[in-house]
Amino acid sequence: MIKVGVVGGTGYTGVELLRLLAQHPEVELKAITSRGEAGLPVADMFPSLRRRVDLRFVDPQSADLTACDVVFFATPNGIAMQQAVELVEAGVKVIDLAADFRISDIAEWEKWYGMKHACPELVAEAVYGLPEVNREAVRKARVVANPGCYPTAVQLGFLPLVEAGVLELDGLVADAKSGVSGGGRKAETHILFSESADNFQAYGVAGHRHLPEIRQGLERFANAPVGLTFVPHLTPMIRGIHATLYGRLKKDVDLQALFEERFAGEPFVDVMPKGSHPSTRSVRSANMCRIAVHRPQGGDVVVVLSVIDNLVKGAAGQAVQNMNILFDLPEITGLGQIPVMP
Amino acid sequence: MIKVGVVGGTGYTGVELLRLLAQHPEVELKAITSRGEAGLPVADMFPSLRRRVDLRFVDPQSADLTACDVVFFATPNGIAMQQAVELVEAGVKVIDLAADFRISDIAEWEKWYGMKHACPELVAEAVYGLPEVNREAVRKARVVANPGCYPTAVQLGFLPLVEAGVLELDGLVADAKSGVSGGGRKAETHILFSESADNFQAYGVAGHRHLPEIRQGLERFANAPVGLTFVPHLTPMIRGIHATLYGRLKKDVDLQALFEERFAGEPFVDVMPKGSHPSTRSVRSANMCRIAVHRPQGGDVVVVLSVIDNLVKGAAGQAVQNMNILFDLPEITGLGQIPVMP
Amino acid sequence: MIKVGVVGGTGYTGVELLRLLAQHPEVELKAITSRGEAGLPVADMFPSLRRRVDLRFVDPQSADLTACDVVFFATPNGIAMQQAVELVEAGVKVIDLAADFRISDIAEWEKWYGMKHACPELVAEAVYGLPEVNREAVRKARVVANPGCYPTAVQLGFLPLVEAGVLELDGLVADAKSGVSGGGRKAETHILFSESADNFQAYGVAGHRHLPEIRQGLERFANAPVGLTFVPHLTPMIRGIHATLYGRLKKDVDLQALFEERFAGEPFVDVMPKGSHPSTRSVRSANMCRIAVHRPQGGDVVVVLSVIDNLVKGAAGQAVQNMNILFDLPEITGLGQIPVMP
Amino acid sequence: MIKVGVVGGTGYTGVELLRLLAQHPEVELKAITSRGEAGLPVADMFPSLRRRVDLRFVDPQSADLTACDVVFFATPNGIAMQQAVELVEAGVKVIDLAADFRISDIAEWEKWYGMKHACPELVAEAVYGLPEVNREAVRKARVVANPGCYPTAVQLGFLPLVEAGVLELDGLVADAKSGVSGGGRKAETHILFSESADNFQAYGVAGHRHLPEIRQGLERFANAPVGLTFVPHLTPMIRGIHATLYGRLKKDVDLQALFEERFAGEPFVDVMPKGSHPSTRSVRSANMCRIAVHRPQGGDVVVVLSVIDNLVKGAAGQAVQNMNILFDLPEITGLGQIPVMP
Repeated sequence: MIKVGVVGGTGYTGVELLRLLAQHPEVELKAITSRGEAGLPVADMFPSLRRRVDLRFVDPQSADLTACDVVFFATPNGIAMQQAVELVEAGVKVIDLAADFRISDIAEWEKWYGMKHACPELVAEAVYGLPEVNREAVRKARVVANPGCYPTAVQLGFLPLVEAGVLELDGLVADAKSGVSGGGRKAETHILFSESADNFQAYGVAGHRHLPEIRQGLERFANAPVGLTFVPHLTPMIRGIHATLYGRLKKDVDLQALFEERFAGEPFVDVMPKGSHPSTRSVRSANMCRIAVHRPQGGDVVVVLSVIDNLVKGAAGQAVQNMNILFDLPEITGLGQIPVMP
Repeated sequence: MIKVGVVGGTGYTGVELLRLLAQHPEVELKAITSRGEAGLPVADMFPSLRRRVDLRFVDPQSADLTACDVVFFATPNGIAMQQAVELVEAGVKVIDLAADFRISDIAEWEKWYGMKHACPELVAEAVYGLPEVNREAVRKARVVANPGCYPTAVQLGFLPLVEAGVLELDGLVADAKSGVSGGGRKAETHILFSESADNFQAYGVAGHRHLPEIRQGLERFANAPVGLTFVPHLTPMIRGIHATLYGRLKKDVDLQALFEERFAGEPFVDVMPKGSHPSTRSVRSANMCRIAVHRPQGGDVVVVLSVIDNLVKGAAGQAVQNMNILFDLPEITGLGQIPVMP
Repeated sequence: MIKVGVVGGTGYTGVELLRLLAQHPEVELKAITSRGEAGLPVADMFPSLRRRVDLRFVDPQSADLTACDVVFFATPNGIAMQQAVELVEAGVKVIDLAADFRISDIAEWEKWYGMKHACPELVAEAVYGLPEVNREAVRKARVVANPGCYPTAVQLGFLPLVEAGVLELDGLVADAKSGVSGGGRKAETHILFSESADNFQAYGVAGHRHLPEIRQGLERFANAPVGLTFVPHLTPMIRGIHATLYGRLKKDVDLQALFEERFAGEPFVDVMPKGSHPSTRSVRSANMCRIAVHRPQGGDVVVVLSVIDNLVKGAAGQAVQNMNILFDLPEITGLGQIPVMP
Repeated sequence: MIKVGVVGGTGYTGVELLRLLAQHPEVELKAITSRGEAGLPVADMFPSLRRRVDLRFVDPQSADLTACDVVFFATPNGIAMQQAVELVEAGVKVIDLAADFRISDIAEWEKWYGMKHACPELVAEAVYGLPEVNREAVRKARVVANPGCYPTAVQLGFLPLVEAGVLELDGLVADAKSGVSGGGRKAETHILFSESADNFQAYGVAGHRHLPEIRQGLERFANAPVGLTFVPHLTPMIRGIHATLYGRLKKDVDLQALFEERFAGEPFVDVMPKGSHPSTRSVRSANMCRIAVHRPQGGDVVVVLSVIDNLVKGAAGQAVQNMNILFDLPEITGLGQIPVMP
């Protein structure tokens, strides 16, 4: 059994991790930390976990995380970078669900995240945990930077096109829509029910932190600079991301075949039949990305539709997938839940 | 492996059955029938089942259901009663998720359901599949009448009180609220998104078909007549039933202990700590009923809060639970999913 | 023109007051205060008011509210009681949308609201602003205690029955469901979208502050003690209250006629035809209470369904209605908006 | 008073028209037709109109619409074109909220709408009722083609840029999101609450009927061919359209000034301050289009955010605006409702 610790168990990615880990056949949950809720039974805060998670939150200071095999950070940005070195040196694998290890360019990271990075050396070593691209590197990693939710949906959608070199790279558009849980479990006015329900709104058009992460990924696929416009929106649903991607083809190609071949054998990417419109609910609560590719009216514009559950393939599920890879388990172990529909 | 057939796989209880059965370790799905969709791959209609259910819908006429060990009817009322005899005579267990076998009094059934009953003799034999009450009888049944959604939430909530004889039986009130999926997957105007969203409304105050089913259950618990007012409401959520139950105590009793003792050891009934307010999301997508009991201001009125997912403990999950009992499997087999929250 | 001030304009009742007052033909908005947002244009916080409200929030200290004809308090409980005396003495009418002047029994108020009352003498003088009961008293009031949202829906629903003396008064039940805006515009976790959406939950079963207010009202109607169980619930919609009321008849009566006669001529109470199920959306954004009365299966239990928009007839609309009465305007002035549906 | 008839009053645009017309100070509602509901009081179907609309639906055959001054068609496509000639010849103004008169190219119309056009001659004469572009032409029209919902939001958003000739015209993208009421009040499975709630999905990527309408409009603004990719999506809210528009600048320009100048004086277009993200709720239930223009990271891509209420500025409100123009009323007459928020 893999001994697992979770740092920061009170947010939505935290409780989703607990849901998945508590059902994972090879995992033993050892510690769940929370600065604010130390001592409280986890299931008192999250009654959905009653009878399934018996632990209490422990204070981060007193938790002996070095006794774990792997520690997940489901914390705000800037926490994992302070604690990862100690864990790594103790031989503990680190999977960070926040952004601390996602951007290689430290200056760029510091600009977007507004703080000084505490351990640039680990950033250089960390592996960006998008298994469909970096599976082999993840296998040997000590630190996995679990991708952001938007970046997962957008990168997987553009991946076959950019790798194959069939797109004009200077005018990509990613119009992305997220459920409100993407905003976290924070007491903030703008994500109140009465503010977010029956409402649709863009945000961060001037620049969102996921932009450099996506661009970095696409540029690695292309091995060339990429011009990307990324506009995120908040949509009145709890879970789900729908990325609508636009690019201009510079050569003719069988788009459907390109996508099917690129993702053949991938357990968690499903290329839908031609003409499909994947719905976010078709992946709700499951570790799955469904993708459809269109070429409206046979023109040179390609439209990709890519959906994930932001809390699963966009966060906790992908983290567990990375854990499975790290520990040489079949990648689908503990991730076989069928989406909940309706 | 249990060979399973599903009659009527295109409604919400049908697709929920498929979700649960496809994840059940002891089940082999043999046939899923649909009059209207014969030939269509099931996963084309329900993309959430892609890669998990490979069957096509088959026409009810051509399906060889007698080769199954058990057949679930996820059909409208009045279908199972026409086909059950043949199956039972062929040694196939029948679990009806509709109402055909729920009411012992045939005249009463015919009044509420507005049709002639096709096989009253099977009604007499059928077992009402509320395991917390009838577990032993289910074990030997040939036909299981799977309870309605409201009746499950209401009966479980009143059960300890009525069995213990501590309530005045002539003035019970069950104020119940259901998510819209309880209305089925039917093209009807009143359950359109734009009609049901951001709206709350009672219905059927003059009399709802679940009233006689609930009253029959309570009267069996009490072995006495029961006066019950039952008011169902539609609430703008997909899944979930919240029953708020009111009764007057005729003797003093430790309510919390009464409930905890009655449901001790029950895998799918969770008595919450004193003072709790169970939420429907705490059971979303899981086979679980969570109950809290209150005595406001220490008066003689008892208030019970009982929540289920109408499609799981209120339909497909309870049906699988009954199947597990019928086939001597541990009752929780295939029903271990943790509720999806948020 | 009536010169109007609003104290506390940043909550939902505040912005709803502004919506109604800005459309009122006899009102001149003079000042809108906010401690936290002083200096900010009101329409920057609430873009729905762009081009319609040109004021900026002013600090409560610097606002000259004594120059107003009437001041609305859309503040948390405990604010109006500190400022009302000065205004009243300056000849300014006060309409408090919070609870400071609603409960006559000061000790009772202090118990439920957990604070010392600052001006008990004004409580004695204040008029409870339920126009359907107290219209004449409101006309001459200096301080109007605008009723709570639940109390409005519940009292109007019980009013004809209790006044007529046809109910057993010791076992009334009010099962009430509120949209989430009833919880206010506060940065609190439990009313986040991801917590409240797709969820249904009771709260405050042990005792809610609206219980003494409702009971006081019913006891005045009855001129006798009343035993009431009140259970509020949160339902995933923005606006609306649905109260389902239960009582036992002690004498036979034509319920439909009783309700129609009691509310004949009332501009803002609509008795629906026999057999109706009023929906909250049928009153959305309008100052209206729609009521239907049922007697299921002809028994002795009466069920009343009463719906309002909690922010309008349950708060800001009723406050404007009271203002119209205070200033001898036709009661419907500025309140003629047709409900927004769908 | 303007004598008004409404053909097809049972859909969402129909009932919204009734809401606006019943509050319009210069309108007398003469007839509301419905084939299926003839004889039924309108307020029985739409309780929100109780006490405000006393008419009954009349059969289209027996309604004397030629006695009206103006007739609105809130019907499915293909109805107005059959009845308009007779009305126009009788001197009745016709405002069609469907698509019959929107596309000048009859062959194009017939291709997209799959039927033969019944009166091409009126198409040539009809005026496309986007007042911000065609105000003067509307004034003298006999037939007004009221724009579609998506086309209103998209055209208004692109208008200043395309008119000013600052965009590359061959690669425009309109990524549009609509509330579910845009799908109409039809008993269809895919717009059921349990299908549309908590879900996000594109549709019609291969080609949507609003594409030729938008392209026609943009090409008129540009007086040149336009290459447009239009992707509509369904978002789980009742009302609202959010169009996110992308184009590439071919010359430098002060975008904010360009928009403010183009829409200066427009009563129903609100250019938001620089950096804004308009929300659909900021226009809910009101005849208003709010627009913000962005240039992310100072690059050459311009992003326009344009929001309307699909049932108001996207349908019924714009139709009333056109009526006001036709009858020389101030354009805002009867359209002064402040958006309902929250």
